[in-house]
Amino acid sequence: MVRWEPGAGGRLREAAMELYVERGFEQTTVAEIAQRAGVTARTFFRHFADKREVLFAGSDDLLAALTRAVAEAPAEASPMTVVAAVLDVAGGLLGQDHERTRQRQSIIEAHPELQERELIKLARMSAGVAEGLRERGVPAPEAALAAEAGLAVLRVAFGGWVSASDPGDLRVAMRETLAALRKVTAS
Amino acid sequence: MVRWEPGAGGRLREAAMELYVERGFEQTTVAEIAQRAGVTARTFFRHFADKREVLFAGSDDLLAALTRAVAEAPAEASPMTVVAAVLDVAGGLLGQDHERTRQRQSIIEAHPELQERELIKLARMSAGVAEGLRERGVPAPEAALAAEAGLAVLRVAFGGWVSASDPGDLRVAMRETLAALRKVTAS
Repeated sequence: MVRWEPGAGGRLREAAMELYVERGFEQTTVAEIAQRAGVTARTFFRHFADKREVLFAGSDDLLAALTRAVAEAPAEASPMTVVAAVLDVAGGLLGQDHERTRQRQSIIEAHPELQERELIKLARMSAGVAEGLRERGVPAPEAALAAEAGLAVLRVAFGGWVSASDPGDLRVAMRETLAALRKVTAS
Repeated sequence: MVRWEPGAGGRLREAAMELYVERGFEQTTVAEIAQRAGVTARTFFRHFADKREVLFAGSDDLLAALTRAVAEAPAEASPMTVVAAVLDVAGGLLGQDHERTRQRQSIIEAHPELQERELIKLARMSAGVAEGLRERGVPAPEAALAAEAGLAVLRVAFGGWVSASDPGDLRVAMRETLAALRKVTAS
């Protein structure tokens, strides 16, 4: 009988981050992560495909929250107003724990294969938002552009926030960066 | 004595594309690519790190051309005017051979590891353009935003162009998509 470990996913994420910070991502094995979390390697693989995926565990939830924000925006909202609502949700979720997020980001930036995984997750967010906009009746090119513009804002705002020593609220940074994008594209 | 093969890089690219289209990317080995190009596997590895890189052989030249376009734009040009010049150069280079580009794109889209490689190359283009803008005195957040906005235009314009049955000039698509971005962000 397979015994399900309650909270094992969260413990594995904690353990993985600790080990990646202590020893480095490459030097850490799945067996070590599982041991520190007090579970078997088999349990690890019930939760994550590989040791890269542990770092991206929240991305499905994030994508679901963003597409929900698209669907729930007022019917009369323009595409960029919908994107602004999406960025507000993204800022709330991504901006919860600056120190942990900063650690995660420095691990990702040190490894091209993690950067690639991060970029494909972000591209999926953009595609998900564009799809949601099309479902609201926004024509395809405009939907893709609004979603990509949102991704541009997210990348710049998040990049500034995660590397800041006194980071503030990521949602505010998102709003300010969106205003800056409007200004720069209008010039 | 190592004999340098003149034009071997180009022949390897041709051979790789032919084999990827005929047999599929996964089913093709480096040895087969080298054989079809009439060179040794050793020669392959003098030109490319692996069989993924063959598909991205032009990306260093493209990045160099884009950063040159940033440097050569008139001193008084606004960041988005510089980005428009960059997109024109990108459209000229990427839009040369629609059929070949379409084949390459369909191989990339079928393989997540190739999509990841493509995304990281595009992220480097954006980072290179942002760096060039900073060297022109554009403040860092504005430089990053203008470059990311340019990447958004490139992705949407290229995506439409590459999948079109009657594609037209990619530079025109870039200009129209940039105008559409200005409109969508202003709304």
